[in-house]
Amino acid sequence: MKVLVIGAAGMVGRKLTAALLAAGQVGGQAIESLVLADIIAPAKPAADIAITTLATDLSEPGAAAALAAARPDLIFHLAAIVSGEAEADFEKGYRINLDGTRFLFEAIRLEGAKGPYRPRLVFTSSIAVYGEPLPAVIGDSHEHTPLTSYGTQKAICELLLADYSRRGFLDGVGIRLPTIAVRPGKPNKAASGFFSGIIREPLAGMEAILPVEESVQHWFASPRAAVGFLLHAAQMDTAPLGQQRSLTMPGLSVTVAEQIAALERVAGPAAVALIRRQPDAVVAKIVAGWPRAFDAQRASQLGFRAETSFDEIIRIHIADELTPGN
Amino acid sequence: MKVLVIGAAGMVGRKLTAALLAAGQVGGQAIESLVLADIIAPAKPAADIAITTLATDLSEPGAAAALAAARPDLIFHLAAIVSGEAEADFEKGYRINLDGTRFLFEAIRLEGAKGPYRPRLVFTSSIAVYGEPLPAVIGDSHEHTPLTSYGTQKAICELLLADYSRRGFLDGVGIRLPTIAVRPGKPNKAASGFFSGIIREPLAGMEAILPVEESVQHWFASPRAAVGFLLHAAQMDTAPLGQQRSLTMPGLSVTVAEQIAALERVAGPAAVALIRRQPDAVVAKIVAGWPRAFDAQRASQLGFRAETSFDEIIRIHIADELTPGN
Repeated sequence: MKVLVIGAAGMVGRKLTAALLAAGQVGGQAIESLVLADIIAPAKPAADIAITTLATDLSEPGAAAALAAARPDLIFHLAAIVSGEAEADFEKGYRINLDGTRFLFEAIRLEGAKGPYRPRLVFTSSIAVYGEPLPAVIGDSHEHTPLTSYGTQKAICELLLADYSRRGFLDGVGIRLPTIAVRPGKPNKAASGFFSGIIREPLAGMEAILPVEESVQHWFASPRAAVGFLLHAAQMDTAPLGQQRSLTMPGLSVTVAEQIAALERVAGPAAVALIRRQPDAVVAKIVAGWPRAFDAQRASQLGFRAETSFDEIIRIHIADELTPGN
Repeated sequence: MKVLVIGAAGMVGRKLTAALLAAGQVGGQAIESLVLADIIAPAKPAADIAITTLATDLSEPGAAAALAAARPDLIFHLAAIVSGEAEADFEKGYRINLDGTRFLFEAIRLEGAKGPYRPRLVFTSSIAVYGEPLPAVIGDSHEHTPLTSYGTQKAICELLLADYSRRGFLDGVGIRLPTIAVRPGKPNKAASGFFSGIIREPLAGMEAILPVEESVQHWFASPRAAVGFLLHAAQMDTAPLGQQRSLTMPGLSVTVAEQIAALERVAGPAAVALIRRQPDAVVAKIVAGWPRAFDAQRASQLGFRAETSFDEIIRIHIADELTPGN
């Protein structure tokens, strides 16, 4: 099968690429070729199969059509600008996160008009589709009232994914990722960055800033779990989804205090001592509007799996990022 | 104040125009000028104020900017192609119902970038944003899982309306209209047409086709109530809406059997005898996926009012459409 990963240069995209190459197959079908696309060309991994890397901007005319023309059987669409940037630059957010995605769906539809073509398309949505009013635990049928342009764009793309799937133009699965922790590498522009920073930096012997109260509660999964979600969405039976093509992924609801307690259990008090409290009213206000916990029954019933303790999430970071040979 | 009505040539648009001219004001502010736009130029009503009628297609480049350049204080956006047509012509549905609306919002935003401008914008959404799974009575916070492209387009526009309002580009109110009955005039392409036909045709001494079982239950308001919703949305305090800018309008939930019983009470058995049962599996299947009843608490608390009996809905049709002088 031919596989296309859009947004392959990002953290999740790179880990997904590595997992695809390691498995060599998806749902029992061997991967024959892999196209890795992003706004900057992704690094080309060593592999036995044909790999194409390319720099492309889905929001540019013709870009999506060029990708669809190769008729990939499986498409992962991870490309997006993050919430902070989409909020800061209104036009760019809509151009990349909405228009880019819609152009991709349209290119697939128009490719299908030339001859039978209906790829599986896995789209990464976000829990940012949820906003006020928020119950303590959000169920699978809760309404979407996003509080950011990013969340709005993701909610719109979920609606498009469902309609394009219903029409038979593509076979879509949207997965609402929890906040990914522990993110490796440097902080990005997301306001959620500190959730990873307070674990990642101390584990590397560096100071980390905590801008919110320890009572702040949020919803997490590891990068390893995120890749697992994507691979499961790529090969699951989509018939049980009906018209509801997007799913809240399972995750773990913990407070910052529980994150810190887990860090102490895994790495000791010296690591915890590197967390410096520096309240930031702007970040605190943004985070206050975020979901705290979900009851992700549909996804769990459909076989999606996440971590069940934050200790496990920290150990995954140590195993995957801080262990020589990985 | 300057008022713009987009979709002014349609049934609700014409009634809204008449109501605006009769009132001469909105929320205590005198109407100084009225622009009536539609895909075909609306008829120009006689009036003491400046009225401009024009044919425009919001989905054409520059069309929305031309409307926004006049800086109307109040905009009613009623223009859309109906569900049947949006389902039959995928591209046209997205072009008119999604792109046209988004271009309008964008034109307002860009006009505001030139100098302070934030009009009240009343957008007609639809209960078609709701689909499976549907409870017997749908609450205000039920998720949007539309089963048609039309419903998808309306749900997307609601999300845009909320985000553009949150950003301060416009002051939006979205109203999800019940199925309007009794629609005057000829049937349109909507699959819901028979709900009006089985009342309208017999009252005019003509035979009407009933394509579904009498047990079918649905959600209604009169054209007069729809105009009332629009005028209330134009002058209400929007602060209590928060980020949830769209509201399910109040309505009346009745079965076809109850419609027919009301017709008999109002117009006698001779009228009812003109209803001919002619089951249509296609229409029955479409209608089976539709909402049956809502608990429109938010809108009721915010002062929106609908009819409370179908007899009243029929009498309004007789008074407004079949009574000389109206």
